[in-house]
This record gives sequence, structure tokens and C-alpha cells, in this order.
Amino acid sequence: MADNPARRGWLGHLTRRSVLAGAVASAAFPAVAATTGAATASPSSATVPGLRTARATGTTHRVTMYAEALPGGLIGYGLAPGEATVPGPLLEIVEGDTLEITLVNTTDKRLSIHPHGVDYDVFSDGAPFNNSFNEPGETRTYVWRTRERTTTAGRAWLPGSAGYWHYHDHAYGDHGTDGLRAGLYGGLIVRRKGDLLPDKTFVVVFNDMTINNKMAPETPMFDAVLGERVEWLCIGHGNMEHTFHLHAHRWVDNRTGYLDGPNDPTPAIDNKDLNPGSSFGFQVIAGDGVGPGAWMYHCHVQFHSDGGMSGVFLVRNEDGSIPDHAQEAIDRYHAGHGGHGGH
Amino acid sequence: MADNPARRGWLGHLTRRSVLAGAVASAAFPAVAATTGAATASPSSATVPGLRTARATGTTHRVTMYAEALPGGLIGYGLAPGEATVPGPLLEIVEGDTLEITLVNTTDKRLSIHPHGVDYDVFSDGAPFNNSFNEPGETRTYVWRTRERTTTAGRAWLPGSAGYWHYHDHAYGDHGTDGLRAGLYGGLIVRRKGDLLPDKTFVVVFNDMTINNKMAPETPMFDAVLGERVEWLCIGHGNMEHTFHLHAHRWVDNRTGYLDGPNDPTPAIDNKDLNPGSSFGFQVIAGDGVGPGAWMYHCHVQFHSDGGMSGVFLVRNEDGSIPDHAQEAIDRYHAGHGGHGGH
Amino acid sequence: MADNPARRGWLGHLTRRSVLAGAVASAAFPAVAATTGAATASPSSATVPGLRTARATGTTHRVTMYAEALPGGLIGYGLAPGEATVPGPLLEIVEGDTLEITLVNTTDKRLSIHPHGVDYDVFSDGAPFNNSFNEPGETRTYVWRTRERTTTAGRAWLPGSAGYWHYHDHAYGDHGTDGLRAGLYGGLIVRRKGDLLPDKTFVVVFNDMTINNKMAPETPMFDAVLGERVEWLCIGHGNMEHTFHLHAHRWVDNRTGYLDGPNDPTPAIDNKDLNPGSSFGFQVIAGDGVGPGAWMYHCHVQFHSDGGMSGVFLVRNEDGSIPDHAQEAIDRYHAGHGGHGGH
Repeated sequence: MADNPARRGWLGHLTRRSVLAGAVASAAFPAVAATTGAATASPSSATVPGLRTARATGTTHRVTMYAEALPGGLIGYGLAPGEATVPGPLLEIVEGDTLEITLVNTTDKRLSIHPHGVDYDVFSDGAPFNNSFNEPGETRTYVWRTRERTTTAGRAWLPGSAGYWHYHDHAYGDHGTDGLRAGLYGGLIVRRKGDLLPDKTFVVVFNDMTINNKMAPETPMFDAVLGERVEWLCIGHGNMEHTFHLHAHRWVDNRTGYLDGPNDPTPAIDNKDLNPGSSFGFQVIAGDGVGPGAWMYHCHVQFHSDGGMSGVFLVRNEDGSIPDHAQEAIDRYHAGHGGHGGH
Repeated sequence: MADNPARRGWLGHLTRRSVLAGAVASAAFPAVAATTGAATASPSSATVPGLRTARATGTTHRVTMYAEALPGGLIGYGLAPGEATVPGPLLEIVEGDTLEITLVNTTDKRLSIHPHGVDYDVFSDGAPFNNSFNEPGETRTYVWRTRERTTTAGRAWLPGSAGYWHYHDHAYGDHGTDGLRAGLYGGLIVRRKGDLLPDKTFVVVFNDMTINNKMAPETPMFDAVLGERVEWLCIGHGNMEHTFHLHAHRWVDNRTGYLDGPNDPTPAIDNKDLNPGSSFGFQVIAGDGVGPGAWMYHCHVQFHSDGGMSGVFLVRNEDGSIPDHAQEAIDRYHAGHGGHGGH
Repeated sequence: MADNPARRGWLGHLTRRSVLAGAVASAAFPAVAATTGAATASPSSATVPGLRTARATGTTHRVTMYAEALPGGLIGYGLAPGEATVPGPLLEIVEGDTLEITLVNTTDKRLSIHPHGVDYDVFSDGAPFNNSFNEPGETRTYVWRTRERTTTAGRAWLPGSAGYWHYHDHAYGDHGTDGLRAGLYGGLIVRRKGDLLPDKTFVVVFNDMTINNKMAPETPMFDAVLGERVEWLCIGHGNMEHTFHLHAHRWVDNRTGYLDGPNDPTPAIDNKDLNPGSSFGFQVIAGDGVGPGAWMYHCHVQFHSDGGMSGVFLVRNEDGSIPDHAQEAIDRYHAGHGGHGGH
């Protein structure tokens, strides 16, 4: 599922980077492939060839989404009939863009789509409170606008829309919260002009005791090649408190996951609260300084992890092959979650 | 309750801005009133006429507070006999100020007042541990000091007292924690010289399954006019974990809620953990980029929201009238929380 | 326990600062000893004599650690046979250092050591998933590497390893999580070259309903002299959500706890979420602006605090004596946790 093109962004200019660009990026990080030492610092403020950044276009994107019943009582969003997934498609735009979503409700339930982070008027709120939802079988359009940061006075700037956000149903059930349990949620990324684009984006939703409504060993196995720029979008839902932990990779606890410069005082972390309604994102270089392998990501609340809130981040060798130790770990993981004792 | 003058700050220079000043501020944001597009960036580092900022005075403010029993088993703080509220009065000072609070305990319970963020010696700790409390019927003075940030060496500065803080009882009950359940808490804002002053401040306390010890639809309806600079002070208490979500408005997750400049890497958010003893605050321009309307604020933990931890942020038209769709939403909200199916 | 040399860092150059240096530091803060007023700002970018900062050496440190059974069903890590403690020894290194830990498992349980924040390959992961653990009686070496931040392109820097991290077992029990309950955890600090060194470091682990596997009044009493630069490393473990609160002291919610400069927009806080797998740290000047005394630190979730998640931070007079009011508070604390009504 991690490699499903439908989930990797529907905008042509944000698809997976070419192999060439990826190779150039790897070359810019001589130590990325080294498993035996720390990265050599190669300070430079020049743009590194091969790195792609987000460009602003001020475009209005029109997309049709379909809410569909799935096996097992789930309901998902999809970009075409029969293509609904849990999570729904990852939506990516750039500050200044507008997104017009025509939602087709193919189910027999009242439901909607409600975003975080972007601008919407009351008619696109997605909440029954504002009479903004799709009746069973109904089609309705929701409009999400974005903008750049703007100055007010002195040092106080109003934030733009850039962020690692998400969207979800806000209308199914007596209180408009049943859709979350059923899988009606997905990732939304608004980039700022100039933001580094990743090679891949993984969407991780901690939803009660599940990851993306699955439990180990059925949770997603995210797959990357050593040195790829891998983006994680983490979203919390449901009724429980969680902490997201990724082995052997750390990130900066700010808007991008990168330090903004050598003196940015924001902490680097590898474990972060992921509670209902919140989201965050970051990019890491797969296997940077630690090498290829099978690395766990999991909720660090112990009984949640014990209960199945864990998964695998596979970092392949540079040639795309799977290291023996990684394959053994994956086999162990599957065996362990049949019986006990493995993960 | 949101408009109770006693809760809007007891310092004369921090009361509600004049209508004229409000109008000037709106004029500085030409897109604030637009519901159909993103705000136009109007970068300028000059001070915008009509914006008021906090001024340092180094004043010692002396105030008498009364702890009083209220109906329903509640106890509140008030600035005059018979005026106790839950939350108690919002206290606002500027770095450098001292606050001397003479607390009159009109109840038959041991209680105290304990602040977060400011400087106090052990005699003003408010904890029985330090023998710092009011016996039933007793009057006692507590002193809170503040200061500006100070340099230590190089880049390491000690923080000043500025922040979105709070105060609460620390002495009622066997463990000094019963006062929180009863409503003995309130907001405390320490501004830094030059901070932008809001038109209004709303205090939101998530206290176990309540907001300000109330449940929907009795939770506060916060009321503003399109374009007003509205400040939120969010405080957590009790035994449960919460996340605060505000519809259609986002803020920066730093000291002020504004970006500190165009390159401030702090994320913008619209959902934030609000757990016992923590507090944060921010300012938003009411309806900025989204228009007037009735917007929900709620805990995003689903069963908390379902159980009544939600309320309404009403953004009126610029002329002060209530849009029809907002009135309908409010009516729906009240009806929905009598039966089910509404919010 | 707070003063156990084995827990104060095993690197000679990071031991407690001399009394002379401490005195110089105090002199640099004329208001530190004042309980009656705010600190006078004395801005200066020059290095203050007597302040010691971390120096990079690129050293490989080799250390042997022993996992040992302790009374009461606990298991601890120690730097020599018979010296295991809960938490285990505080490990401190500087970016660029490598730490080679030879772990001797003297118990009859499978166990390991797994770090947060640093670089390790799959063979040092410490997880059964990667076949990285010590069988009962087995000795095994784990390698942790660190590095400085490195530029990628423009404003996007990869973070270095500096941070307030921790380590813990990841292999004991069916799911590799039983070691946390038993006490197999400790603090890990990676400093950046130039970071201010503290006089003392305190390690506080909120682990289910305990602090360092103890409950009040057996929780650690941390002990400092007025004006000392005291560092706190706070770590969360287990299954519960917590908030760490320290009375009368606040810190900046960033990598160091200090403002990075006069305009750093990061909030100052005195209460912070401390959830499983997370950690943070900060330095405060003991008693700065508030004077000597016995100050509580505790979980601010009320029933956790009521249940024993609290302790004492003793700030002595400058001459090392204990103020009468502090001794009385400590006596009250011990009496209160025998019966009720005290803390």
C-alpha cells in the first residue's frame, strides 16, 4: 500500500523523483551509504543539483473524490470509483493553490470531508453543525483555499497554510465521529514555495489501537532505497493517546523536520506525541548514517506496541536489493506476530 | 460569560480596544472580510496605525481576590465580593510588573492561589507543603514577580516571564487538588513589552470532561466581529488528556501564535495537546480568509467531543449582525445537544 | 541517589564544576540570590568567565555496563559489578563522539540496550526484531555514533545528534517491553560543541505511576545550592500519559532550555507532556529570582500526583545550609505521605 501510486499524490509535478535525480542527491551526501561512521559535514549554502523544490502556481485544482464502502465495515475515500483506500489519497498542494473537491457519496450514510490547516467558509466546513455534509448518495463540492504568510506589524506575521495536515469525515454517526473509526481520513500536505520535495511520502495514522486501521503484522511496510529523501506524515485519530517512534532516524521538531540553519534551536527528536486531531511531518534520508536494514516504527506506549501498533520501515541497499539481515528481520516480525516473542 | 468585563482583564490599559482602533486594524487587512479568496500579502515592517502593543511600566499592582462558594458545589475566584466566576478573573501584567494578591477566603475550606510561570518565594508558593495557604476565613497576601529575559553567555539567554500562564488552588482537599475540580482556576497573561494587544481574550479550560466546568450546550459561546484580533488562552486541568481544536483558524505553535518573521520555522497548527497543568495562547484575526460564521471549538478526542466538550466561536458580520447561517448553526447546536445528531 | 557519582556522568571532563567556577557563575548573575526582586538584565555577548562549555573531541569512548538483578524484582544497569541503579548511569558525550558499550548480562533474562537519538546500525538496534540482544549471561557490544548537523541545501540542515536522549532495554519479555517496568533505563545526553555545562544533572523518569520506579516519599530529593546551574533530564516510559511540573522555575521549550537570543520566539514553560518514549532537558539556575527553599516537582495529572508522583527539589542557601522553612517542608512532606494532608 505504501507504494500505491494513487496514494503518492495526485499532482503530476509531485510524483516520485527520477532515478537520476535520486542518484544525484545521494552523491551530494557522501556518507549516506556509510554504515560505519558519521556523515562528513559538507557545508554549502548553494543549491545542490538534483534537489527539487516546491513551486508556487496559484492554481485551482479540481478533483473528484468517492466515499465508498470497503470490506470489513470500512469506508474509504478514493480518486476514482472502486479505488477507495484507508487512508484516502494523499493530497498535496502549494501555498496559493485552491482545491475544489467534489465528493461523491456512494454510501448509505451521511458523511463529509473536513480539512485541517486550510481556509474554508462555513459551507465547506464539513460539519452537520454548519449543515455542510453529503446525504447518502449525494454529491457536493468543498473548497479549500491556501495562502502565503503575511506581515501584520513588526515581527508578528500571520502564518501561511503550509503544513503537514490531514482531512477526515465530520458527519457520519450521531456525533459525526463514526467516520474516523471506519477509515474516512487521509493526508493533506501544503508546501511552501521552495520546500524540498521528497522522493516518497508515507502516511501513518494512529487511530485507536491501529495504524491505518490495521494491526501488526498487517500494518504498512514502508519501503525505500538507501539515501532516498523519505517524508513521513503522521496523523492521530480516535480516543487514545500515542507516541510515534522511528528507529535509527531523527528529525527536527519544526515545520519541515530540518534545522532552518546551523543555529536553529529546535530540538531533534525521534519520538513524538501523536494525539487525536494532531498531525506532523518530516523528511529523513533513508538509512543516513545507519545503513540499510529493517527498522521498526511503532507507538512507544508499551501496551499499544505490544498490542500491534508497530510496523517496518525497510531501507534497501543502494542497488534496490534487500539485505539478508533485513529479510530475516521481516520474516521474524511476521512469525512473531503469529505466535509471540518476535518484535 | 466571555464578555463579562470582570473577566476581560482588570488593568485599565488592557481593556477592549476602541471601535476606531478596530476599524483601522481591519483596514490593514484588506482580505480579512473576503470569504472568497486568500489574503493579499502586504509586507511591511512599519508599525500599522491602530495596533496597540504592551508597554512596560514596572508597576506593582495590588488586587484583592475573593474565593467564594458558588451554586452546584463550585468555588470560584472573584475581584469583588459576590463576583466569583469559573474560571476566575483573567489577570494580565507586563514583564517587570509585580502582582500582590490579597486572597480573602470566604469559604470553610483550606485553599490558596498558586501561579505558573512567574517568580514567587516559598511563602507565596500556595502549597501546604510550604505552609502557604489560607485557612477557612483567612486573608493572606501572595506576591508574584516578573522580569525580562536576561543574557547569560553567548546565545544562552534566560527566559523572561512572558507567557500564557494560569493560576489555581493548590491546597483544598487531602492532596491539595480538590480545588481544581471545584473551579478554582483562572488565566494569567504576562506580556512582553511590544507584544500586540488583542481586542478580546477568551479563556478555555479543559478540566476533565468539561470546558470551564460546563458541558455542551452550556459551554461558553465566544463572540467576535469579523476582523477583530481575538486571543485564546487554553489551560488544561484534571486527570484526562485532551487536544484543543479550533475550526477554520490556525496559529503558530510558539510564544505568541504569530510567526516571528517570514522564516520562522515553527509549524502552524489548529490542534494542540492540552494536558493537566499546561497552557498556551495565541491570537487570530476572527474569520480571516474564511468569513463570518459559527465555528466549532472542541476537544478532538472523539468521545470527549461526543460527551460535550465542544462550543461555538461566533464570528459576526463587520456591522455586528449575525449571519443567518450562523444563527441556524447555533440553533442546531442547541437542539442537537438536547437530543442527538447535531454537532 | 541524586548525588551518586556513578550517576553524574562517567566522563572525567563532565564532572561537577569546581566551587570556584560556581562562585564566578553566581557573581555573573547579581540577582540570582535576590528573593525580593526581578533579575537585572545585563546583556553581553561576551563569554562569562567561569562558564564551561562542551568541547568536541571526536573520541571513541569504550565502557562496560552490567545488567544486574536488584531487590524487589528490579533490574538495573551499572558501570561496574554490584553498582547497578535505577535509572542506570547517566551517559554524556559530545557530537562527533562514538560510544562502544560492552553490555554484560548477569541476569537469567534476555535483554539489551537501545538508545534514542544517536546513530546505530541494525546490529546495535537492541531489538529482537533485528536479532540484537544479549541472551542470559551473554556479553555483547553495541556501538552508538554521533555527528554534527550538516547542510543539505539552502535553509534545510540535517540535525546533528545533540539532545536530551535516553536508553533502555528493548528485549526482555515476550514483546521486549518488560525491562522498562523492571528499571532497565537511563539518561543519555549528547552535547553540541559550545553547549553550557551544568553543575549537576538530575534524571527524572516518569514510568507508569512512579518516578524512577519509586513513589513519594521515596522519590528522589534533588539537591542544589542557590545559583548552581542545574540540569534536568526528563524521560517518559510505560503506558500512561504524564505532565512534568517544576515549581518556581521555568525553561524554554527548545533544545537547551535557554532562549537562543533575545528574539527567540519559543515559549517558556514550567509544565510539559512527558509521555512514553519521549525525553527533554533543560537547565535552570537553582532558586533564581525565587530564593532558596524546598520546591516540589510532580506530575500535574492530579490523581498521579495524589498517588505519589511527586518529589522535592531542595535549593540550599549559598553557604550550603538548609533554610528552616525548607527543612520544615521536607518534614511535612514525609509526614504527609505517611498519613494524608501534606503535600
